[in-house]
Amino acid sequence: MAKALVVGSLALDSIETPHGTVHQALGGSCSYAATAASYFTDVSIVGVVGDDFPPDAVENFRKRGIDLSGMQVIKGGKTFHWSGYYTRDMNQAVTNTTELNVFADFKPVLSEAQRNMPFVFLANIHPALQLDVLNQVRNPKMVAIDTMNFWIEGYKQQLTDVIRRCDILLVNEGESRQYCEKVNLIECGRELLQLGPKTVVLKKGEHGALLFQKDRIVYFPAYPLDHLKDPTGAGDTFAGAMVGYLAHLGEVTDDNLVRAVHVGSCMASFVVEEFSLKRLLSIKPGELKARTDRLRSMVNLPALDEKSLVDVKG
Amino acid sequence: MAKALVVGSLALDSIETPHGTVHQALGGSCSYAATAASYFTDVSIVGVVGDDFPPDAVENFRKRGIDLSGMQVIKGGKTFHWSGYYTRDMNQAVTNTTELNVFADFKPVLSEAQRNMPFVFLANIHPALQLDVLNQVRNPKMVAIDTMNFWIEGYKQQLTDVIRRCDILLVNEGESRQYCEKVNLIECGRELLQLGPKTVVLKKGEHGALLFQKDRIVYFPAYPLDHLKDPTGAGDTFAGAMVGYLAHLGEVTDDNLVRAVHVGSCMASFVVEEFSLKRLLSIKPGELKARTDRLRSMVNLPALDEKSLVDVKG
Repeated sequence: MAKALVVGSLALDSIETPHGTVHQALGGSCSYAATAASYFTDVSIVGVVGDDFPPDAVENFRKRGIDLSGMQVIKGGKTFHWSGYYTRDMNQAVTNTTELNVFADFKPVLSEAQRNMPFVFLANIHPALQLDVLNQVRNPKMVAIDTMNFWIEGYKQQLTDVIRRCDILLVNEGESRQYCEKVNLIECGRELLQLGPKTVVLKKGEHGALLFQKDRIVYFPAYPLDHLKDPTGAGDTFAGAMVGYLAHLGEVTDDNLVRAVHVGSCMASFVVEEFSLKRLLSIKPGELKARTDRLRSMVNLPALDEKSLVDVKG
Repeated sequence: MAKALVVGSLALDSIETPHGTVHQALGGSCSYAATAASYFTDVSIVGVVGDDFPPDAVENFRKRGIDLSGMQVIKGGKTFHWSGYYTRDMNQAVTNTTELNVFADFKPVLSEAQRNMPFVFLANIHPALQLDVLNQVRNPKMVAIDTMNFWIEGYKQQLTDVIRRCDILLVNEGESRQYCEKVNLIECGRELLQLGPKTVVLKKGEHGALLFQKDRIVYFPAYPLDHLKDPTGAGDTFAGAMVGYLAHLGEVTDDNLVRAVHVGSCMASFVVEEFSLKRLLSIKPGELKARTDRLRSMVNLPALDEKSLVDVKG
């Protein structure tokens, strides 16, 4: 039985970055997150596509053992399509067009099995749909959610309702500042915690991530990459891998959360090396371990000479 | 005998931030760096002031045991004055006026004792002056340098000559991108290493710092602060504390470099809590230790379940 439920968008993306272009390539928050999670646990998805959704995308999901029984296929419908571009610094996507298509009338319907899944990830979709899913699940061990600037701008109250009901909130730097209307990220993290989640994971792209809990802040580097082709899906991959790894570990303890963010951060470093899910689908045995080892070696601080710190002359 | 030589500007600053204003307050790269270094080692400075330089500033340096024999006081001259402001995000200072005053004709002259000092920090000043000092010192154990956007823009060749001759280059995010004409910070760090320094420390403000060496990258968090009053001097304090702590440790080993950046990062977290050197001059015994402990607790990653990383299904 699948342990992780992923709900989000299944999309076709047309993207331009300084390093190339793709048209109608597989994308969407659910695609990235479910694929990433599938490296660590059994995954089931809920989503919708049109009958233009490419068979090789379906085949990719199947190969990764993802349960597709909750993927609605709308006859004669067109799959959600996003087109956009990144400028030189690749920090922020600029949207050209968003065609909701079959997504406009999407109603997530969970099967009996899905309603009982212990690990739930609500990837970036309309907060009303996220709430809809929350009303269907039964006492999961953990609910993690992601969002984006668009929902903060237009649907803040509904989004806040979702945040109040989740265990782990994932946001990026810009989103946290936008939601809290504050500049300082430490303040933002603390304020978001006040809403109810036990854990806030603040993703900072090349600057890594911060994990906030009531009594601690944990700092994660980004895996060092000197070439990025396309940042699309990095956040979804991060979140999906994190949730999948937690499902693999089975319990949401403090140490397991740190392990899961560590793995999420490294998995995200693969996806940006190529367009679409190309690299995410071709991670070879040993490659992830090498990156997690490397990341770990980057942050272990040796002990300091205690006396030198206590005996300050001032 | 002093072990660390600090050369840089002694200034009076007029600064406005969203949290207040100061007029003609003690500032300058040498003031911050020497004061920070003085917590860990004996410090001697080379700099210039006018006879308007406030006696209590001198008294502050004296109390911290800083050797001022190399501080030239120009009769009838005015001290270097900088005025500027920070906008809401406090990431970048905007200059209103720069009055060089006595700094315009400054020629650093090192005493016999200063020429033999083992640890040398060339804080942010004209690269021609930095070169001048490099030509006077005799076989130091370590030379660290800092700079700023202004010198990269107008004096890149001279600055490059300085970089080629230093052991440790300190730059911030924006400076590294400006110098390398690249966006990716990992690329920038590697390119700067190619110029000659054995170590590049890339300071990223709230995002911490990266240490680059031939065979490794080390990641440092910033000490988490939810209120900053004035970021002026944070980089100088970071660098001064780093050099001072290296001088205290006595040898520039790989582990000692990590320790020194760790301490530098924590010392910088004090200075931004108040305007000018107010907080830097009032660090109490135990306060620094508490911050270094906290920082260390933020980055130690527990081991991962190795099998889960190797046996990827893909």
